Amino acid sequence: MAHAIGIDLGGTKTAAGVVSADGELLFSETTPTLSRAGGGAVLDATAALVAGLRLRAAADGFSITGVGVGSAGVIDAGRGVVVSATDAIHGWAGTPLTEGLARRLGIPPGAVRAVNDVHAHALGEAWRGAAAGTASSLLIAFGTGVGASLVLDGRPVLGHRYVGGHVGHIASPYAYADGGALPCSCGGEGHVEAAASGPAIHAAFLRLGGSPAVPDTRAVFALAHDGDPAARHAVRTAAEAAGQAAGGLANVLDPEVLVISGGLADAGDLWWNPMKAALRRELLDPLVRVPVLRATLENSAAIVGAAQLVFN
Amino acid sequence: MAHAIGIDLGGTKTAAGVVSADGELLFSETTPTLSRAGGGAVLDATAALVAGLRLRAAADGFSITGVGVGSAGVIDAGRGVVVSATDAIHGWAGTPLTEGLARRLGIPPGAVRAVNDVHAHALGEAWRGAAAGTASSLLIAFGTGVGASLVLDGRPVLGHRYVGGHVGHIASPYAYADGGALPCSCGGEGHVEAAASGPAIHAAFLRLGGSPAVPDTRAVFALAHDGDPAARHAVRTAAEAAGQAAGGLANVLDPEVLVISGGLADAGDLWWNPMKAALRRELLDPLVRVPVLRATLENSAAIVGAAQLVFN
Repeated sequence: MAHAIGIDLGGTKTAAGVVSADGELLFSETTPTLSRAGGGAVLDATAALVAGLRLRAAADGFSITGVGVGSAGVIDAGRGVVVSATDAIHGWAGTPLTEGLARRLGIPPGAVRAVNDVHAHALGEAWRGAAAGTASSLLIAFGTGVGASLVLDGRPVLGHRYVGGHVGHIASPYAYADGGALPCSCGGEGHVEAAASGPAIHAAFLRLGGSPAVPDTRAVFALAHDGDPAARHAVRTAAEAAGQAAGGLANVLDPEVLVISGGLADAGDLWWNPMKAALRRELLDPLVRVPVLRATLENSAAIVGAAQLVFN
Repeated sequence: MAHAIGIDLGGTKTAAGVVSADGELLFSETTPTLSRAGGGAVLDATAALVAGLRLRAAADGFSITGVGVGSAGVIDAGRGVVVSATDAIHGWAGTPLTEGLARRLGIPPGAVRAVNDVHAHALGEAWRGAAAGTASSLLIAFGTGVGASLVLDGRPVLGHRYVGGHVGHIASPYAYADGGALPCSCGGEGHVEAAASGPAIHAAFLRLGGSPAVPDTRAVFALAHDGDPAARHAVRTAAEAAGQAAGGLANVLDPEVLVISGGLADAGDLWWNPMKAALRRELLDPLVRVPVLRATLENSAAIVGAAQLVFN
């Protein structure tokens, strides 16, 4: 059976694994992303990770058909180039991702495929995870940012400029406080990401008079579990903002299932229950029974989805 | 050359025309929709309209390949059935649209295709109108309601339950007044349609203290043109709500072009300019130059788009 190597290339770490043609992750390895060393150095380290996996695959008798990458940033999936990226990886924008990896690995450029990591994540869940067997799914990830991918018939809708899925940057009634719009990471304001991301929860807690000694969103969740009113309010409000956005997007895109993932989706019922209630309130009648699923593949989703690019 | 008959079946009138395989509308006829007589009577009248066009086509030497319908309501394009509909056409929900028309016309059921009218409208603009020649377009219609259709590679994204495109039912920060969410036509609240539709403009005008003697949105526009402050404010605010929603959807779907249509898009610069300014404010950097086009086919768009279903 054919096998592929899937790579999940993020701002902090890069994970890669060998995936069978039916979507089983056989083994994987992880390395820190050299996020301050420039695009070339990141490619060098990624190629070294892949080379190690190829040796291991060869020793086990697997042949590798190709390499798929799910990468941070806006990825031109046609040319295999990083169109733009945040400063999470210095010098990542402009990197010739697929061609650079292919050259370092000594394989044809066409044997390497790449998409944005949220699309890879959604592809993995659609292939082997929560949305397996569906004709369409919308995965929304709520974490440091808010992103999504609509997978139609096994392919993500990437958008004309490969920007599709930026659901964090639609307007949210929750992204207003003290009479003004909250600033968004994109430079705009009043967007879903400003109300429903992880950092938005910490910011809301501070606005509600929470102690500045509470350092981050994780600590706000801990306080919320202990019953702190400001922490509970901040978590509940962000969860409602997330659910409202997810429900509205379901009305627009009408996927067979919704898949919710990201750090906040893993944070427990304090977030999940108000998110889901707000989501249900938004839905048009024909959608009221749309399945709202938690992602199931965890850290392997983007590796598996990236590998799927090779087989598709 | 092959020809098809396209039908635009709305709550007030039904228009149908003969369209060539390259999208030219040769001639068309219009009849009032028998919206109080039940689904069977509507089909009878529609079949009569089509029969007349077939005779005219035959006299001119055109052969008709099939019939396409863009209809009000949620249309199951697979089975050709009206899944649900508002009361604009009594008894429309449940009507076997394609099979009923085919039987009345004496043609095979497979020769009749149907989609929702907004999808037909978008298909027409994508084929021969403002979005002709593009790989993807998002048409948003602002009128009595707010609806949309994303056309990818010549096909509309219909959704798993054929509900896709209901962009009027996502949350809008503009759909709040006096501290509460405005009611929406769907039974929910706080949605784009409650802030950006035609009726929303009249409602906003009344909330702003405008005279109850002003009967409708058309009259509010007339007052706005004359400089009435409440009318101008109501129009501008609804236009901003429309533009904000359109810009956010562009961030999510990243179409090659945006096409804006509907009664409000035809209402002149008082609406168009603040709509476009609000739209531009929402866009992510890679999208700042996305073309924002006015629909060009006017009343023939849905006829032409419905006919395209036959050729596609």
